[in-house]
Formats: sequence, C-alpha cells, structure tokens
Amino acid sequence: MADGHRGITPQREDFSAWYNELVTKAGLVDRGPVRGTMVIRPYGYRIWELLQADLDERIKATGHQNAYFPLLIPESYLRREAEHIEGFAPELAVVTHAGGKDLDEPLVIRPTSETIVGEMMAKWISSHRDLPLLLNQWSNVVRWELRPRLFLRTTEFLWQEGHTAHIAADDAMAETMLALAFYQDLATQTAAMSPIAGEKTPGERFAGAERTFTIEAMMRDGRALQAGTTHFMGENFARAFGIQYTSSAGELRFCNTTSWGMSSRMVGGVIMTHGDDRGLVLPPALAPYQVVIVPLGRGDQAQDVLPAAIDLAARLTAAGVRTHLDDREQLSPGFKFNDWELRGVPIRLELGPRDLAAGTSVLARRLGEGKEAVPLASITERVVDELSAFQDMLLARATEFRELHTATVDTWPQFVAAVARGWARAFHCGQKACEDEIKAETAATPRCIPLDGEPETGLCIRCDLPSAYGKRLVFGRAY
Amino acid sequence: MADGHRGITPQREDFSAWYNELVTKAGLVDRGPVRGTMVIRPYGYRIWELLQADLDERIKATGHQNAYFPLLIPESYLRREAEHIEGFAPELAVVTHAGGKDLDEPLVIRPTSETIVGEMMAKWISSHRDLPLLLNQWSNVVRWELRPRLFLRTTEFLWQEGHTAHIAADDAMAETMLALAFYQDLATQTAAMSPIAGEKTPGERFAGAERTFTIEAMMRDGRALQAGTTHFMGENFARAFGIQYTSSAGELRFCNTTSWGMSSRMVGGVIMTHGDDRGLVLPPALAPYQVVIVPLGRGDQAQDVLPAAIDLAARLTAAGVRTHLDDREQLSPGFKFNDWELRGVPIRLELGPRDLAAGTSVLARRLGEGKEAVPLASITERVVDELSAFQDMLLARATEFRELHTATVDTWPQFVAAVARGWARAFHCGQKACEDEIKAETAATPRCIPLDGEPETGLCIRCDLPSAYGKRLVFGRAY
Repeated sequence: MADGHRGITPQREDFSAWYNELVTKAGLVDRGPVRGTMVIRPYGYRIWELLQADLDERIKATGHQNAYFPLLIPESYLRREAEHIEGFAPELAVVTHAGGKDLDEPLVIRPTSETIVGEMMAKWISSHRDLPLLLNQWSNVVRWELRPRLFLRTTEFLWQEGHTAHIAADDAMAETMLALAFYQDLATQTAAMSPIAGEKTPGERFAGAERTFTIEAMMRDGRALQAGTTHFMGENFARAFGIQYTSSAGELRFCNTTSWGMSSRMVGGVIMTHGDDRGLVLPPALAPYQVVIVPLGRGDQAQDVLPAAIDLAARLTAAGVRTHLDDREQLSPGFKFNDWELRGVPIRLELGPRDLAAGTSVLARRLGEGKEAVPLASITERVVDELSAFQDMLLARATEFRELHTATVDTWPQFVAAVARGWARAFHCGQKACEDEIKAETAATPRCIPLDGEPETGLCIRCDLPSAYGKRLVFGRAY
Repeated sequence: MADGHRGITPQREDFSAWYNELVTKAGLVDRGPVRGTMVIRPYGYRIWELLQADLDERIKATGHQNAYFPLLIPESYLRREAEHIEGFAPELAVVTHAGGKDLDEPLVIRPTSETIVGEMMAKWISSHRDLPLLLNQWSNVVRWELRPRLFLRTTEFLWQEGHTAHIAADDAMAETMLALAFYQDLATQTAAMSPIAGEKTPGERFAGAERTFTIEAMMRDGRALQAGTTHFMGENFARAFGIQYTSSAGELRFCNTTSWGMSSRMVGGVIMTHGDDRGLVLPPALAPYQVVIVPLGRGDQAQDVLPAAIDLAARLTAAGVRTHLDDREQLSPGFKFNDWELRGVPIRLELGPRDLAAGTSVLARRLGEGKEAVPLASITERVVDELSAFQDMLLARATEFRELHTATVDTWPQFVAAVARGWARAFHCGQKACEDEIKAETAATPRCIPLDGEPETGLCIRCDLPSAYGKRLVFGRAY
C-alpha cells in the first residue's frame, strides 16, 4: 500500500506520524477534549494495569506501603522549596474557585507530591524509631504541556511516586538506587526494553534534588526516552517542611528524603521500542491478550470449529495464558489476522476444519518466521514456551538495536553523526553553557552518566576542556 | 478509664467523636491541609486496596473493561444535561488558570464522569455491533463539601465509576441491577455489612438519572450509610451527548446508558458497622493483617522465642494468611495487645517460652470469649477456620443489629421513635413536600424502596394519603 500497512505512515517516512496514527488506530488511546489530555482506552489501560501490578509487587516486597495524598495543594507549599517552585511554576493548573466561591488561597493540582508528603511526614515522624518511612502513591498528576504527545507528554498522566524518609544520607542514597533497580528491572524483564541506568548531570536534575538518577531507553528512531527517575533530596525538603526526628542520643535532626516516579509514558516507550510498520508488537508480559485464536471457515464450517476453539481457549486460560477467542461472525479471518497484528498480539492460533481433523492448530508469531502446525494435545506447553522465547527475543532485539545505534566518539563530526541516528558516548566538560550549545546545534542532551561506564578521562567533545564525571556521558536526542 | 479505652470517647457518649478519634488514632487517615481533604495512611489504604481488588474482579468477570478518562472537563459539558449541572454546580472546583495563563474556558475537576464519558462514547459507538460498551474507571473525584467527615464525605474521594451503553432500555436496566448486585455482594460477603438493596424515591435520584438504586447499610448508631448506587439513565445522556448507533435494520437510534459507583466511603462504613469502644474490628477479608503474632518475654527470653515466631509467621503467610509479627523491642506485650485491638486485627497469637515448651500458642479473638492454647502443629488450619468463623460472625451480628433496630410502623409516634434509634418500614404518599416535612421534623429520609419488600398498601405515615410504591419504604437518618 502506498501509505504503508493499514493506512499507517511507515516509521522511516515519519516516525512521529507512525506513532500518533498507531496509538489511535490500535485502540490504545484517544485525545481528550481539553488540550493535552488523553483518554486511555481499555486496550491501553490493560497494558498500564500490567505494568502497575508488576511494579507494585516490587515496591511492596521491599517494605514500602501504599498511601494516598490529596490532589489539591495550597500554592504556598510549593514556594517553600525555592528550586522546586521555580521548576514547576510554569506547568501548574490552579483552582481559584470552588463550592460556588472564590478561594482565599489558590490551590494547585499536584504536579508531583513532595510538598504535601513533606508536610505530612513532618507530622508523622518524631523519633528515629519512625524511620525509615517508606511510602508510595499511585495517582494522577497535572503538568500543563505546551507540546503534548499521547502517553509521552500529556497534561494529565498516571504514575506512581515513591516518597521515603531516612536517618542517614547513605540510607537515602541506597533507597534511591533501590528504586532505580525497580525501574531497570521492570523495563528490562517485563517491558523487554533495554534501558541504561545512570545519573543526570546537574542541569537535568529534578527541581529540588541533590542527585537524580534515570533509566534511558532507545526508541526505534534512535531517540532516548527517560522512562523512570529517582531522586536523592538530601535534607532539602526536610528543611523546607520540618521533617525531623529525635536520634537515639536525644538530638533533633533533619531526615534525608527521596522520591521516585514511573508513569504512563512507559506505555509509549513499549510501543516505540517494539512496534513496526505492521503495528504494535507487545511483549508477552504486558500484552492484554498473549494469544488470539481465530477460527477459520464460514457458516456451518465455523460452527463445527467453534466448540474446539472454545475448548482450546479454556485450556490456555487455565494454563495462565491471557487468551482471546475472536468469534466475530461478520469478519473474515484475513481481516482478523491484520487486526491482531496491528494490535500486537504475540501469538495467533488458527483453527480450521482441516486443522481440527488433523488434531493440530496453526501457530503464527507476530515477529519471526512463518506458520507452523502444532499438535493440539501439547499446545499449552508449546504456547507457554513460545511466549517466553518471544519475550526474550524482544529484549535481545532491543539490546542489539541500542548497541548498533550507540557510538563511542572523540570528534565533533563523529558526535553529530552519532546523535543523528542514535546515541553518542562522549566526554564532556560539565559546563551548563557547553551543554546548551550542544543542544542548540544538534538537539542532543546528556541523557546520563552511565552507572556501568568505564573510568576514563579525556577532552570535552565540544569545547576541548578536560572532561568531568570521570567517565563518558551518553548523549542523545530525547522525547 | 474515664474517657473510655485508649482515650477514645465511647460510642454511646458521642458516636461521632468516637469515629473521628478512632480513624485518626488507628492510623487509617489524617486530615489534609485543604479543608475537607484527607490523607489515606497505609493501614487505611490497604483496606481500600482489598475492597478494590475484590470489586475489580467482579467487574472484570462480567465483561467490563477498565479505562481512564481525563480529570479536567470543560465546564460547558456539564451544562448539556440540565438536571446534571443543577445537581453538581454547587460542588464544583474550577480551574481558571493553567500554564501561566488564564484559560479561555474554565475547566471543572470531575465530580463524576458521565459527561466526558458520554462525549467519548458518542465518538466510539456507531453500530449495534459496538454495543454493549461496558467500561469502568478507578479514579479520584472532587466535590466541594461544606460538612466534611473523614472517609464519608470528603472534598476529594477515591471511587470506581462504571459507565455502560446498551441497545435496549431493558438491557440497561439489567446492567443497573447487575451493578447493584456487585455492591450488595461486596458489602455482604467481603465487608460483612448487612445492607438492604432498593430503589431511591424520585427526590433522591442521581442528577440526570431516570432510576437510581442503592445499598443502604446500618451503622452502629442506627444511622444509614448509602454504600453504593447504580443509575439507569434511559436516553438522557445519550441525547445530551449524541450517543447513537445504527441498528441492524439501518436506523439511527439513541443508546440507553447506565452509571454506578462505589467509593472510599465504604471504608468508613466498615468502621462504623463493626467497631466498638476498644477500637476497630475488621472483617478478615478486609484486614491488612488478619493475624498478629506477639512474642512474649523480655531480653534473652524474647530472643529464644523469636525464631519460632518467625517460623510461625512464615507458615501462616504460606497458607495465604496476612500475618504480621510484632517484634518491636521497646514495647511491652500488654502495649502491643492494646495497640492491635485498637487497630482491629481479628486474631492475635501469643508465643512465650512456656507456650513454646508446650508446643502451643495462645489464640485470642478480637471479639468473643477468652484465650485458648492451640497446638503449633495444627495452627494454620485452625487459624484459617477461625478467620472464616470470624467473618461469618461479623455478618450475622450486623444482620441481627439491623433487624433489631428496624421497626415496621403505622403511626407517627412509632415512626419518630423508630428513626431515633434505627430504621422504620413505613408507607409513604410519594409527595416530595411530605418527604421534606418528615426530614425537617425527624432528620429521617426515605433510604429506599426495598427490593425485597412485600407488596402492601396503606396510608402515608405522615399525611394519611394513600401510599405510593406498592410497598413500605425504609426511612432512617443518614450519613
């Protein structure tokens, strides 16, 4: 087709158009009536629920507890931490009128909850015995977006935000790294993305943090997606909100705090990591339907096959496989094949009268080589194996793609070429002005100081001053 | 103690003070900084999560899918359904300023989502094949409250809202009753409350609904708590938002829609149904900890017992029992006993050096007769049985309490006496003015026309006109 499969612009032609068309056509999401808002449709929301369930388990298994803090925050709270208000002021949505009256003090809709959590922590913590306090919240937040993009940057988004308070700075740093491991593991093991973990440069830190860490994943257009961040606050928020404890020696001290967040933008990351011109490609761990069964044949023939298809679906479901039987009568098998390819279902099972007679079903994978007849007697074990192999294959493919599109560079022309198609590992002087120049010329920013980077020094890729950080940074254009 | 156990006002003295003190002291919830808002602390949020998980399963098992609609709704949307805006206008919180600018059109924070869901349904539905459309959303909503009360009426609360569209009015009515059964089953089987299900009188209907159904539970002060409502909208919202489909005969028709909601106020209902002067009493199905283990003995003795306590906790956890080992060193067993009574844990297991030597643990229930030594060898089976019996006992007790405090009355003095201590089953003429008079004199309102009421007619309890509805109404003072 001239305009690509199913009327979707091919990735190479316009990646951004491909993405916007696909997320809508695959039924993941729709634009909301208010600029920059989105409606997450059931197929997209199920992916988010699967991400949530996975991360929630990691969070709870390490002693954190869920809680819920109010949506509306007095504007004055945000002003208590100077960098925090400076960072968030331009993005705030403000309630000035409620219950039929003008409010005495404007209320902001939370853009993040450090301030209100800080206020409550100050009330709850008095002794060292109250620490550590390990909280997490699943919620919506609002940040006014000038350049919205579905899932990736929306005026309202869904996320979790961890908020913890500790005695020692070391404990808070350990927590910051633990949360980073949650995100790295979730993204790698569950989303089959292959992000790298690292620290943000000072210019890219969270507003009010002493150190910010990130996982950065490479999308199929070579751009970086920040897919989760964790922040070590030191005593900044504790001082702003009076979060203090009495030590075992009876001294009053400030806590060290952290915060960390993963959001619905991760759904966008999954799409842009695995999708192709035929549509979505979903990792089995996040696929609403891991297997779709399409009965073949029309009229009476279809009626003969249907009981066997229902039985097959029941067996797979009983084996823990999320299975969908597509028994829509008015649609042809070919239409259904295309539809489920578009929607990224990992495995399709076809069941026709001839298959049934042979005691087999035809198995087709969303990626990879042709179809294969599989005996119905052993099909559940086979499907479970195939799903596991599909998950592994996606992760391997994402890792290979990232490595192929990352270059270690020492000259400016090499750098420019590298960030035009992917990422560059390069030395940098650590100066904000130099970062800004690089961004102005190439649109690339320092994504992170990779945790696993080799200790190395050299000259700044841009200005030839000696490198900072003791290792190369990863640069790339970002979402 | 003069002021009741643990400094909590006794229920008989001031039920409202008892409630407010208990929810805070038991660590369920705290007041937020903005008037009428609440912070749900981990112990309270866990109860909500258990309610959510249970209801979510019921919702999904019947073919509904979760989705997510935006928090912010253009004010004009609410005006499209005349009764709807009239009902909600006084409670709206309005965003007038965002992203550093005044907005062209004010946005309201959703008080409920019929309008924005209606707008999107109109976009998604075109054919009869798209129906029924069965959606549900877990979210926060904001309704400005003049008389806030933690969990029961807060400016922001958490809830689920089901929204469905159907071809026929009968289908939508069946859905309305199905959702009512979700709530009745959740409240009865899981929350061990004993609500009655019925229809609201016209004066108590949801703004924009043709029929509203409710479950009404009796609290231990005899008042009613509306714990879940379901609404049959007929074509009202379909006409306001253009939710239309083409029938199989090719005709363009309006859908019939429903909506239904259950909220965090249910947590308040659990507390007021089961709690006593010693603190919370939690039904095992909703208890964050079903069993708490308290090791006895101090110093070296405690150290001897601890490994056995850890082993016991592990065995119970493996058997699916939510178990907490209270190994806080600085607190006495007596303090811990009181603390876990206050927090409503159904079963306490004590383990001291002498118990250990005898191969037993002392089991104490939150309600009911004394302690009992139970052999450690068979303790998991015993605990599972005890939890089940405790759950059944709470439901039986709530049912008995409701029946004891509900009177069938035919004279005005009987009515006044009945609603002063509980509920009255009485005839009513169906006139709004008469309902208002009854409320003005007794604070009682018609809670519902009970589904299981006997067909009966008589004279209005207040004005002697012939009764409407064909059966007695249930009247009571409500939260």
